[in-house]
Amino acid sequence: VADTRLIGLDWGTSSLRAYRVVAGGELGESRQLPAGILRVVADGGGADGFERCFEQACGDWAAAAPSSPILACGMIGSAQGWREAPYLDVPTNLDALGHALTAVQTRGGAALHIIPGLIDRRALPEVMRGEETQVMGALEHAPPAAADRWFGLPGTHSKWVRVRDRHIVQFHTFMTGEVFAALCGHTILGRTMQQPPAPDLHAFDRGVEVARSWTARTVLSTIFSTRTLHLVGALPAEAQADYLSGLLIGHEVAALEPLAVTGAVVLVGADELCRRYQRALSAFGHAPASIAPDVTPRGLWRIATAAGLVA
Amino acid sequence: VADTRLIGLDWGTSSLRAYRVVAGGELGESRQLPAGILRVVADGGGADGFERCFEQACGDWAAAAPSSPILACGMIGSAQGWREAPYLDVPTNLDALGHALTAVQTRGGAALHIIPGLIDRRALPEVMRGEETQVMGALEHAPPAAADRWFGLPGTHSKWVRVRDRHIVQFHTFMTGEVFAALCGHTILGRTMQQPPAPDLHAFDRGVEVARSWTARTVLSTIFSTRTLHLVGALPAEAQADYLSGLLIGHEVAALEPLAVTGAVVLVGADELCRRYQRALSAFGHAPASIAPDVTPRGLWRIATAAGLVA
Repeated sequence: VADTRLIGLDWGTSSLRAYRVVAGGELGESRQLPAGILRVVADGGGADGFERCFEQACGDWAAAAPSSPILACGMIGSAQGWREAPYLDVPTNLDALGHALTAVQTRGGAALHIIPGLIDRRALPEVMRGEETQVMGALEHAPPAAADRWFGLPGTHSKWVRVRDRHIVQFHTFMTGEVFAALCGHTILGRTMQQPPAPDLHAFDRGVEVARSWTARTVLSTIFSTRTLHLVGALPAEAQADYLSGLLIGHEVAALEPLAVTGAVVLVGADELCRRYQRALSAFGHAPASIAPDVTPRGLWRIATAAGLVA
Repeated sequence: VADTRLIGLDWGTSSLRAYRVVAGGELGESRQLPAGILRVVADGGGADGFERCFEQACGDWAAAAPSSPILACGMIGSAQGWREAPYLDVPTNLDALGHALTAVQTRGGAALHIIPGLIDRRALPEVMRGEETQVMGALEHAPPAAADRWFGLPGTHSKWVRVRDRHIVQFHTFMTGEVFAALCGHTILGRTMQQPPAPDLHAFDRGVEVARSWTARTVLSTIFSTRTLHLVGALPAEAQADYLSGLLIGHEVAALEPLAVTGAVVLVGADELCRRYQRALSAFGHAPASIAPDVTPRGLWRIATAAGLVA
């Protein structure tokens, strides 16, 4: 591991991903630990707790290549993280992220640099931590002709990000993933659900179609059909979860219209989830969306380059 | 208790309410037990389980006045209940509910009559069990001049019911109460919430106002402001729950506009909750809504009268 040029960390709420990046920004190796900041805080928190997780994740890499810079993004820079990295206000020049790093001295002597999150205080406040790095890594996937480029980052808290001239100018959060989990796990909608042998994309498409045809209805109302369609024998227990998934993602995609999301969207996230969003976007008449893979180590490399941490 | 003319039951998912009704339909006495059908089913279910709960709730009333008819509404008539009472399709003549009762023979020899629920199969299916009885009991509260009368029944699953010429012609379910509980209990939004010393109606109104000013935004997105306003220091931990309550109820009330809910609405439900809906309706420019109290025993009495069970 002496060829390490950058140690990159994506340190979020529930997990810690470590990337060993080699010459040219290529990914040499990656690891994932269930050592998100919530776990660290629950275990007592403090600098000691973060030090231990850092050592566990990549102490060997840092020892073998002690001159490698260390760069982290995500909730590790929040008030509950290792060191608070103040937010940058949007619009934010993506190439300037590397000039606003916050450093923590690790016990081993190396500095760990934390990338700032972004905030939009102009209306309902919006915040992100980590997604700015993913967008940085996905920039080359955007169609170069479009003035505005939209990036969709589905997940627990989906983000939709508008980029113009290498600036993040606007973004919006949808709690779709977390709401889905809460509805399945803690409401009547989950009570009858059964795991299908394979994802039921037909049921997913039905949910999307309901969201598309009932745009005047709030999701607070349409979700009840997950139960009533089952009651009348029109939705099997094994199809209820995928139907609800389609319904929620459909409501999210429906809400992109007033945001004037146009052009071919670039999706970033887990592959199976991104493919669901591709289906939903297509059902709503959007241009085919592409999926940008492996964006986080690439984004970390680019920000490290802009910061002068790597040549 | 020899003056009992009707034993009425509102037997729902999580609780069982029993009413002893005396001459003229006046309420003599009421009781509430945590013996909803979910509990009965969890305890083994079956006719024996329902018999035991029935005995416990009002066996003494039935023994003292053995000629009193027994009439029940709610989930007790569902497939998981004591005996399935088939749904009536909307539009449904409220005065005909009494002619569609389903009888169960109790061990004591008396018949327990179950009021049918309603179903609307015309679009996304809608179902109700128990609310038809509450609407029957609230009819006199509706302004007699209006051709269409709207009844709002807020709760775990809010119902909005349109009545014309003593027929329920349309109704819609909003899972507002259950979604609120799931968001507070099982998502990041609840993590920082603290109980206020008293309900914070100012925070509630703020939430309503956000729903009103951002009607193009889905609730999947606006709810995240419960967190971000707190992060930027604009929403104290003690105000987060009432803010979220206002936001969700605001989204529900916003969705009444495409349903063409007009005229002075009649609200039925827990008093504190109904007063929140009054505030939200008023913020959206609706005519002042009234609250109809004690509707369930009155509705049971009227349906018993229509059925010929009481003189």
